[in-house]
Amino acid sequence: MPSALDTNMKFKFSILALLLEVVIIFLFGIFVEYDTSASQDLYPYFQDIHVMIFVGFGFLMTFLKKYGFSSVGINMLIAAFGVQWGTLMQGFWHIRNGKIHVDIKSMINADFSTATALISFGAVLGKTSPVQMLILTILEITIFACNEHLVTEIFQATDVGASMTIHAFGTYFGLAVALVLYRPGLKNKHENEESTYHSDIFAMIGTLFLWVCWPSCNSAMASERTKAIVNTYYSLAACTVVTFALSSLVDQKGKFSMGLIQNATLAGGVAVGTCADLSIHPFAAMCIGSVAGIISVLGFQFLSPLLASKLKIQDTCGVHNLHGLPGVLGGIASIVVTAINEETKASVLFTPGRQAAALGSTIGIALAGGALTGGILKLPFLGQASDQNCFDDSVYWEVPEEKKPHEIHSNNYDEQSRAEATM
Amino acid sequence: MPSALDTNMKFKFSILALLLEVVIIFLFGIFVEYDTSASQDLYPYFQDIHVMIFVGFGFLMTFLKKYGFSSVGINMLIAAFGVQWGTLMQGFWHIRNGKIHVDIKSMINADFSTATALISFGAVLGKTSPVQMLILTILEITIFACNEHLVTEIFQATDVGASMTIHAFGTYFGLAVALVLYRPGLKNKHENEESTYHSDIFAMIGTLFLWVCWPSCNSAMASERTKAIVNTYYSLAACTVVTFALSSLVDQKGKFSMGLIQNATLAGGVAVGTCADLSIHPFAAMCIGSVAGIISVLGFQFLSPLLASKLKIQDTCGVHNLHGLPGVLGGIASIVVTAINEETKASVLFTPGRQAAALGSTIGIALAGGALTGGILKLPFLGQASDQNCFDDSVYWEVPEEKKPHEIHSNNYDEQSRAEATM
Repeated sequence: MPSALDTNMKFKFSILALLLEVVIIFLFGIFVEYDTSASQDLYPYFQDIHVMIFVGFGFLMTFLKKYGFSSVGINMLIAAFGVQWGTLMQGFWHIRNGKIHVDIKSMINADFSTATALISFGAVLGKTSPVQMLILTILEITIFACNEHLVTEIFQATDVGASMTIHAFGTYFGLAVALVLYRPGLKNKHENEESTYHSDIFAMIGTLFLWVCWPSCNSAMASERTKAIVNTYYSLAACTVVTFALSSLVDQKGKFSMGLIQNATLAGGVAVGTCADLSIHPFAAMCIGSVAGIISVLGFQFLSPLLASKLKIQDTCGVHNLHGLPGVLGGIASIVVTAINEETKASVLFTPGRQAAALGSTIGIALAGGALTGGILKLPFLGQASDQNCFDDSVYWEVPEEKKPHEIHSNNYDEQSRAEATM
Repeated sequence: MPSALDTNMKFKFSILALLLEVVIIFLFGIFVEYDTSASQDLYPYFQDIHVMIFVGFGFLMTFLKKYGFSSVGINMLIAAFGVQWGTLMQGFWHIRNGKIHVDIKSMINADFSTATALISFGAVLGKTSPVQMLILTILEITIFACNEHLVTEIFQATDVGASMTIHAFGTYFGLAVALVLYRPGLKNKHENEESTYHSDIFAMIGTLFLWVCWPSCNSAMASERTKAIVNTYYSLAACTVVTFALSSLVDQKGKFSMGLIQNATLAGGVAVGTCADLSIHPFAAMCIGSVAGIISVLGFQFLSPLLASKLKIQDTCGVHNLHGLPGVLGGIASIVVTAINEETKASVLFTPGRQAAALGSTIGIALAGGALTGGILKLPFLGQASDQNCFDDSVYWEVPEEKKPHEIHSNNYDEQSRAEATM
């Protein structure tokens, strides 16, 4: 059975990927130009964001015991494809004289656009094929670019750290896809849907790089950059202490949960995003981070099981708790801040109504776009794995053989013959 | 036995952590303000230091086979809590109009302050509870901030890379704690106090990020920044070559030791810290780095076993060899350099006497502060693990069960009963 799948994947994936790359290169040839007028001030920020997308997101998802190749590998594929597609989709909204001008800033935005697809990848991790993920990436980044235009240009809302336009968008898009692709056969946890001691430590590589680089992510596009850096730094710090406290508190034996530490410690970075460069005061940033830690832990502990059992949404990485709820919290915080903060009230641009419109449109468009995308991904020729083959790298990857227990004590002669057999 | 311990940790840890976070947010509300006048020039340096604290220190300690969750996890907790506490403790010494003004520079200093607690964590790794580590962090950062003020403001000594104020301080504080918490039951090595093949590779993630980012750490606060970067770069390079040579030399079979490579290669960064931005010439920096590599390897090989057997100081990570001896070397180098270097002699500020006073006060205050802290941590209600439970994540963490070979082909009934047993 897996071999049939693999053969199918061979031609479908290769042809689709090569075709898309040819089309993209063709479009770049027509539309894309350098913008050399811009400075490189943003470059260190870009580098940090780049680390977040490729190392952070990639390793964060390596917690599954047999799905590390796909987590870090397909993450790389989605991101590398997405930055090209995102450059075009975002560029078309800012075309000048028939040209898309690229510089460090548009590279940051292209990296950002891929984050939406990577967050959705987390929701369906282990249950989709590489072909499906390429198609999801095309559709999601296209719809994301439209919603981003709506939020920033039409509504003129503020969302400097993209709590709404990236984190909430990517989450609700991914959850809608997961709902459409619901697998009743996985109602009882799949035997591979668990971590090992080492896979959990690998995932911490992702967590720590995301944690460390998050101030860059929330401040790169900010006008008040120091404020955005300071607010994000203290929000994350407070969120982390609260997450450790809550993780121990919700556990029956008072122990920490590695899954919670890997994820909920980052919620403070998501939630403070929308307000990051406003004059909210460091202590308010810490309050936002603390609340984000609390809702994220409670979401993992109580809401995710309910979503799976009642709403048929199987969210593998719990992106709803790391990106969704904290993203919505960030949107709500921005409504409150623009309503009560004197400094932002003085500005005609940011109003509670515009922030609310941004939040509402983002969630609505994400859910509709995700449902549509889920429907397309369900088309039978896209090589979706059987329930049995979920969460298993060996369906899509050549995996080095682990010695089976009865082979471990095999004698040297056996070792020798096996070594020869693999030549 | 572990279950009784765990119940204790549950409420004690959660209540203490939440209480501390509330107090800190309250103090931030009263005292802390943005300083938006400063530029973001320092931001790339801050980012590198941030990576060192969270990724570097965290992964360096993952070498133990069953203590990786605690190493990287509790490191994150200490650092996230410490940056907040450090902001306040350092800020109180520089208060203006009743306010602590935070900017990138104060974030760097806050990150630095946590390094002292993380170094001490290395000395007692595997033998302390999370509650004990929170208390140690509060006390150590408070005392560190006082000593730092004494060294830089009262003695007006130079210590740009903090060889003395951070590395020597964190070490002798930690060793004093380890002495007070001495466990005769661990005189013969604990069965878990060893590495595995994979845990040693995880630790190299920490080593390499520390190594790569160290020039930022030594130059962030320097006036002669290029000198500090160049000196650190070549000191580390020389130190690494010497460490490989010595590692092979001290081994009976001439093989390299992963533990030595993980740690002693970094001694050059520590030792060159104090003199990093002085005109010592690159070749002198390389001499300092080489000597640091030698004393670090010899320290691991000969001194640490003596400290454990004769002085009853059980230093889990050998921080004395990575941070302590090279830190003292850095202090001594600064005494020599200020005595003989024409350029620094011309400056009235840096004198051998002031440098010696800085080194002496740092070691003295660290030892006294560590002894006091150790005494407090010995209070029986702080949930210190029994000797048997040392170096074992499962006391404080939910750890995925490793299947034993004979269980892999167990039937579903066994799976089921094991799953229930962990509930």
